[in-house]
Amino acid sequence: MTKRVKKQSRKAGLPPGTLIHIGDVLSDQIKISLMSYDEEHVAERSISTLQECRLPEDFPGITWINVEGLHETKILEQLGANFGMHPLILEDILNTAQRPKIEDLGKYIFIVLKMFNNHEDKAEELESEQVSIILGSNYVVSFWEKEGKTLDPIRERIRSGKGRLRKMGPDYLTYAIIDAIVDSYFIVLEQLGEKIEFYEDTLVSKPTPQTLQAIQHLKREMIILRKSVWPLREIVGFLERTESNLLDDSVGIYFKDVYDHTIQLIDTIETFRDTLSAMLDIYLSSISNKMNEVMKVLTVIATLFMPLTFLAGVYGMNFTFMPELKWEYGYLMFWILIAITVVLMLIYFRKKKWL
Amino acid sequence: MTKRVKKQSRKAGLPPGTLIHIGDVLSDQIKISLMSYDEEHVAERSISTLQECRLPEDFPGITWINVEGLHETKILEQLGANFGMHPLILEDILNTAQRPKIEDLGKYIFIVLKMFNNHEDKAEELESEQVSIILGSNYVVSFWEKEGKTLDPIRERIRSGKGRLRKMGPDYLTYAIIDAIVDSYFIVLEQLGEKIEFYEDTLVSKPTPQTLQAIQHLKREMIILRKSVWPLREIVGFLERTESNLLDDSVGIYFKDVYDHTIQLIDTIETFRDTLSAMLDIYLSSISNKMNEVMKVLTVIATLFMPLTFLAGVYGMNFTFMPELKWEYGYLMFWILIAITVVLMLIYFRKKKWL
Amino acid sequence: MTKRVKKQSRKAGLPPGTLIHIGDVLSDQIKISLMSYDEEHVAERSISTLQECRLPEDFPGITWINVEGLHETKILEQLGANFGMHPLILEDILNTAQRPKIEDLGKYIFIVLKMFNNHEDKAEELESEQVSIILGSNYVVSFWEKEGKTLDPIRERIRSGKGRLRKMGPDYLTYAIIDAIVDSYFIVLEQLGEKIEFYEDTLVSKPTPQTLQAIQHLKREMIILRKSVWPLREIVGFLERTESNLLDDSVGIYFKDVYDHTIQLIDTIETFRDTLSAMLDIYLSSISNKMNEVMKVLTVIATLFMPLTFLAGVYGMNFTFMPELKWEYGYLMFWILIAITVVLMLIYFRKKKWL
Amino acid sequence: MTKRVKKQSRKAGLPPGTLIHIGDVLSDQIKISLMSYDEEHVAERSISTLQECRLPEDFPGITWINVEGLHETKILEQLGANFGMHPLILEDILNTAQRPKIEDLGKYIFIVLKMFNNHEDKAEELESEQVSIILGSNYVVSFWEKEGKTLDPIRERIRSGKGRLRKMGPDYLTYAIIDAIVDSYFIVLEQLGEKIEFYEDTLVSKPTPQTLQAIQHLKREMIILRKSVWPLREIVGFLERTESNLLDDSVGIYFKDVYDHTIQLIDTIETFRDTLSAMLDIYLSSISNKMNEVMKVLTVIATLFMPLTFLAGVYGMNFTFMPELKWEYGYLMFWILIAITVVLMLIYFRKKKWL
Amino acid sequence: MTKRVKKQSRKAGLPPGTLIHIGDVLSDQIKISLMSYDEEHVAERSISTLQECRLPEDFPGITWINVEGLHETKILEQLGANFGMHPLILEDILNTAQRPKIEDLGKYIFIVLKMFNNHEDKAEELESEQVSIILGSNYVVSFWEKEGKTLDPIRERIRSGKGRLRKMGPDYLTYAIIDAIVDSYFIVLEQLGEKIEFYEDTLVSKPTPQTLQAIQHLKREMIILRKSVWPLREIVGFLERTESNLLDDSVGIYFKDVYDHTIQLIDTIETFRDTLSAMLDIYLSSISNKMNEVMKVLTVIATLFMPLTFLAGVYGMNFTFMPELKWEYGYLMFWILIAITVVLMLIYFRKKKWL
Repeated sequence: MTKRVKKQSRKAGLPPGTLIHIGDVLSDQIKISLMSYDEEHVAERSISTLQECRLPEDFPGITWINVEGLHETKILEQLGANFGMHPLILEDILNTAQRPKIEDLGKYIFIVLKMFNNHEDKAEELESEQVSIILGSNYVVSFWEKEGKTLDPIRERIRSGKGRLRKMGPDYLTYAIIDAIVDSYFIVLEQLGEKIEFYEDTLVSKPTPQTLQAIQHLKREMIILRKSVWPLREIVGFLERTESNLLDDSVGIYFKDVYDHTIQLIDTIETFRDTLSAMLDIYLSSISNKMNEVMKVLTVIATLFMPLTFLAGVYGMNFTFMPELKWEYGYLMFWILIAITVVLMLIYFRKKKWL
Repeated sequence: MTKRVKKQSRKAGLPPGTLIHIGDVLSDQIKISLMSYDEEHVAERSISTLQECRLPEDFPGITWINVEGLHETKILEQLGANFGMHPLILEDILNTAQRPKIEDLGKYIFIVLKMFNNHEDKAEELESEQVSIILGSNYVVSFWEKEGKTLDPIRERIRSGKGRLRKMGPDYLTYAIIDAIVDSYFIVLEQLGEKIEFYEDTLVSKPTPQTLQAIQHLKREMIILRKSVWPLREIVGFLERTESNLLDDSVGIYFKDVYDHTIQLIDTIETFRDTLSAMLDIYLSSISNKMNEVMKVLTVIATLFMPLTFLAGVYGMNFTFMPELKWEYGYLMFWILIAITVVLMLIYFRKKKWL
Repeated sequence: MTKRVKKQSRKAGLPPGTLIHIGDVLSDQIKISLMSYDEEHVAERSISTLQECRLPEDFPGITWINVEGLHETKILEQLGANFGMHPLILEDILNTAQRPKIEDLGKYIFIVLKMFNNHEDKAEELESEQVSIILGSNYVVSFWEKEGKTLDPIRERIRSGKGRLRKMGPDYLTYAIIDAIVDSYFIVLEQLGEKIEFYEDTLVSKPTPQTLQAIQHLKREMIILRKSVWPLREIVGFLERTESNLLDDSVGIYFKDVYDHTIQLIDTIETFRDTLSAMLDIYLSSISNKMNEVMKVLTVIATLFMPLTFLAGVYGMNFTFMPELKWEYGYLMFWILIAITVVLMLIYFRKKKWL
Repeated sequence: MTKRVKKQSRKAGLPPGTLIHIGDVLSDQIKISLMSYDEEHVAERSISTLQECRLPEDFPGITWINVEGLHETKILEQLGANFGMHPLILEDILNTAQRPKIEDLGKYIFIVLKMFNNHEDKAEELESEQVSIILGSNYVVSFWEKEGKTLDPIRERIRSGKGRLRKMGPDYLTYAIIDAIVDSYFIVLEQLGEKIEFYEDTLVSKPTPQTLQAIQHLKREMIILRKSVWPLREIVGFLERTESNLLDDSVGIYFKDVYDHTIQLIDTIETFRDTLSAMLDIYLSSISNKMNEVMKVLTVIATLFMPLTFLAGVYGMNFTFMPELKWEYGYLMFWILIAITVVLMLIYFRKKKWL
Repeated sequence: MTKRVKKQSRKAGLPPGTLIHIGDVLSDQIKISLMSYDEEHVAERSISTLQECRLPEDFPGITWINVEGLHETKILEQLGANFGMHPLILEDILNTAQRPKIEDLGKYIFIVLKMFNNHEDKAEELESEQVSIILGSNYVVSFWEKEGKTLDPIRERIRSGKGRLRKMGPDYLTYAIIDAIVDSYFIVLEQLGEKIEFYEDTLVSKPTPQTLQAIQHLKREMIILRKSVWPLREIVGFLERTESNLLDDSVGIYFKDVYDHTIQLIDTIETFRDTLSAMLDIYLSSISNKMNEVMKVLTVIATLFMPLTFLAGVYGMNFTFMPELKWEYGYLMFWILIAITVVLMLIYFRKKKWL
């Protein structure tokens, strides 16, 4: 939890614009791929030298540079120089403790998003990864800590030329990337929803202190998700409403669509939070209920046997003059007395609904 | 609960505008009915072929197409093409995990609403159904997962020509449909209110852990309803205030009326939520009260019999020299001592208000 | 609680503007009184025929029609026709499940308020009654479910000609009616405040589960009041600020005064709510405290007598070889041992602050 | 608590502008003092007749009339007539159940504030007093239920001519009075802060149910203070921003200063509220902790002595054939068995951390 | 806690603008340093006489005066006179109970901030220090209660001429100071985060009442931090958006960067608060769990031994006629009976999951 703060505090005292990679190194090697396309052509390339980190000359179409891995600051410096990015923007890209945000710098729009991994292993923690997107007039540069396969369908759609991607501008490509990220949230929420349902069943059948910890853990994950999704909504809302000439009017309806999805994400997260709160209440009252049950058993046992033990004690006394002891049916009467007491007690307990 | 998320996550990676029906298939067959009317004429038809899904030619009046069942995407595609709907709108109609919303697209207004079933069976879950309405200049197209009988009174009013329906435009028809849906919420709330009253009585007479679960269940249903009614208020408020020329000024007062009803719905839901929270408090404190009562019985019994048992134990000892044992009235005195102890104890308990 | 919803759901499926009285019939007979006055003249009349429900001809002054009882829809229809009221307004007057609201319809202003009865009987429920006011250019029509004596001082002031009433317009009369209703809230709050103080004392002296229920009951009444007073504030605020020419500027300061009173009502209600929440906390912690006390008694008794009983048990054993039993002072030493044990225990308990 | 409501309800049914003093009579006699000053002259006078309640003729400077005690309505009527005050303003001055507010009536500004007494006696309740200020073009009239010594430093500054007071207008005098009142809040808060610290220490050392009541009492006092300080902020904010020509621009920065102080008051009150809430939590969990401790003692005692008592019981049985009883070392072995049992138990308790 | 209020109340009754140092004296001696620089020159000086507290004559560059220690009001008066500061501003600088704020006075901008010490000692309290900054057209004056080493990196950057500091105006210097303060918050938060993690582990392994107090203590520190960071955000937001000509447009992006950092601070503080609340819930439910466990042990022991003790009591009775006692295998059967009872009990407990 404190990791994020720690990372940030490492920069205290440094002048602004100093490029330092803040965060864990998630991928061993930096991979840069370049894709340039227009309605007729597609060209793909993997970049290995610093000099290639630029727009292809003599090509009027759209160029998409995707950078995976952020720990080599030199490459970023070069890219920043080639595309005329402000040093503070480069600093933000490297600082993975960033909050999702959007900044319109006139010549380009800078977007920071969070992406969550699909943790199929139940024990695993929810881990976020930072994605930065720079949308220019005829290019998109995207930065990932570790990309995975989120972008594969988009690349496929560019290659095949199906759908609108090839026909539209870099704003639509930006939309496609954000849409893919938003879709990945639904997968994460589905997994969390399954976990919640699992613990909901456990809560009824066999609640343990571990269940409580699991609920609290899920609650905290909801808070983390929430912290990413709320600014996401603002970002998409900004893209929908902005009058920047980097965004064509025809793309507005697509961003409206993503906006609706983020609203849906927020709705789901809030519902999950309410559910988890209710689960906490049920857990706590089930502890009280159990305590109640235990206390009833104790009280029944004590109430039943204390008078009996007293009675047995009475006839174990050694007074010289105790007529009952001499009586032939004394022992029988003792047991009859015991039986009557027990029956009366049981009737009383039944009336009190303790049995 | 996670169903809604699951459905949505199925679409991850697909390009926008891909028509996939998301949701359970609620009706076996798709039923499409077409009603065209003006102040003098009414014509009703059931549609079976794709070609018929269009406005009747050479008829200047209002046309209302009602589609029940969403699982055949072809019909929707055809309808969309005939009425010039945007692919994303069609996608939204099919995606029943949608949040209620309104979109003004200039040539038509698109509305998504939620309708709740009247679950007369007490055990049944509250289930929502999505209703989409498209309001054009001279037509209304409405989509239902499964229509039921909600629209029957409206159809009857069109057929009979009573009331304003025949005299007014498609905006008034839209109002009539929304009004019918809002009215159905009152029926659902009435049923929930009866459930709440039932459990309120149970809470006083005989609270069980099941009561707690029922309260929590009702609380969750309130949250679900709330999630549908709050956006509903925004939708109706939008229709009341909008300056779209699809909506005539004379209809404004009717939408204001529906708006007041949604405010009333929200008020009722909030009251129910407050009531359920208070019921939870009463339930929890009643558990504590019961525990208290049990503890008092235990303490009374233990406090009463422990000294007595000790006394009996004393006179059961085998010391050679114990004068009381030899005394003729020893046994009698023992019982007198017991009686005095018991009486003193009872007075003490009475003073403590434990009996 | 569900009554309000039930009433509303009865209208599902009916066309808008259908006049149905929704609510309990609070007065047996409908009473209509007409008062027309200007600075010099006053005329009062009780109306019995439908034809009289109109403005007196050839009288330039102010006319005030007061209708008590809403269950005869015919009278309302006639009134509506005579004064040119919109059918939806008539519907709202009859629907007593209405939320307080104000509507400016240009030619007249329509106001719905709630009035609470002064329940002097402690057991009685808080019951609201709907009051509708129509303020026209030279008339006021007011509708009550059951009027009581709230308006008597106003009538008296009109008759006597004291104060400003006769000199000013229908807007000032409207102010006078609203002011009377707001004043009645203070009386209701005073009664509730006395109840709260009564239960506050009970809470300290002798809390019972009934106290809890009473607190919860008062909390719910606060919610009901709150639901009426918050919109009331909006209504009065609207009347203060509006630029409708039905309201003269000189009346603004009077509505400002009523506005301050509603703010004061809200303040008081919020204070009462806070007090009731604190009472709930005190109640719950007093239960815990009592439990603690009971547990201490049990523990003291058990801790005191268990060792003693064990000791008595030891000397009740039948071992052939037990030197203490034969010893002359054995029995004496036993009692000395008991005494020492008890004293040590008591010191321990005293140290633990359990006694 | 209900006092405030009671007072208000006394006015139900009376026409607006009726002058009735609402509140306790805090000072026996009404004291009116008049101070007129400009940069060169100062004149002070105590007023005893009604005719003197007016601006001194032929004096161009500033006049400050201070009225202490509100129960004689005649004096107020006379003052109102002389200074041209609206009857509703006079009514507000007399109604000490007023909420702090400000009203700009063009020719003068009317301000209502609350002042709290410095209750040095720990048991005393926090009691508020209403202060009304009327700021005209060349006069200030201030009304106190009971003035005390709050204004003495201001009078002294006027007399001595030190500081800005004599050089500036009635707006600066108003500022000085409000500043003195705001300063008095800090003294009240300091006293409450000391109380809170006292109970915080008690909470750790020796919590009792009285501590809970004291915390709840302090919480309620915070609510009362809050209800006065929040509108105070609005009032001062209004004075800072208003463009009334009764307020000179040069005074703006002084009101900004007072505004910062009210923000600081609010901050402190909120911090105190948070502290009191945390104290409540600590109190409640300390009760649970104590219960836990008591239960442990009980369980240890019961677990220790129940097996021992059983064992003693066994060897107190009268079976003819019980070999142990006859054995020479039987009694010794019994004690060894007891010792072993006790030691094992103690090890178990130690492991469970119950001892 | 009450310290802040106490300090403030000391000023009650004094005229505004009276210079009194409010707060603890954190540094023994007042240190004033003057640094004047432009792109080519740097001059540093330590000031000891009052006359030197002014802008260097005949130097067109930027002058930065840094004052450490506030307890000598004379120096401040001189500075105020030299730089034309309003007396209320000087008062605010001396009053260290100030809330962070910003004021644009046209000729200069006045900023008050809070700085927190890095308390490396775990037991130490979080202590704030007030920093005031005055930004003029060609100078910056900063005041510290006790400076420490926060500014050393900035001075170093000015001396070395690296980075932008020397090239830009006093607005950028102000940015650099604020940035250094914001960075110091991250260090404080990191330390608090480590404390939280420490207590989170303790909570699981061995919760004690001390853990509760530590959690409450951390919660309160979060509130204190929050009270400083929220206005900090407003201040930086103001600096980013303001159109004052003291701030150049080129500095806007740097303030935007600091703004993002303060948002991040707020995010972290809120996350910590949520975590601490969850820890409180876990602590309380762990107490309940322990109580449950203790109760189970007690109930098991009592339920096990009470019947056994009764049975032993029965055969310790002295009835003349008790056939079992005479029976040769009576004693053996007794033990067999005991064994069976114990086994049945254990099966029952196992079924109840109490063992």
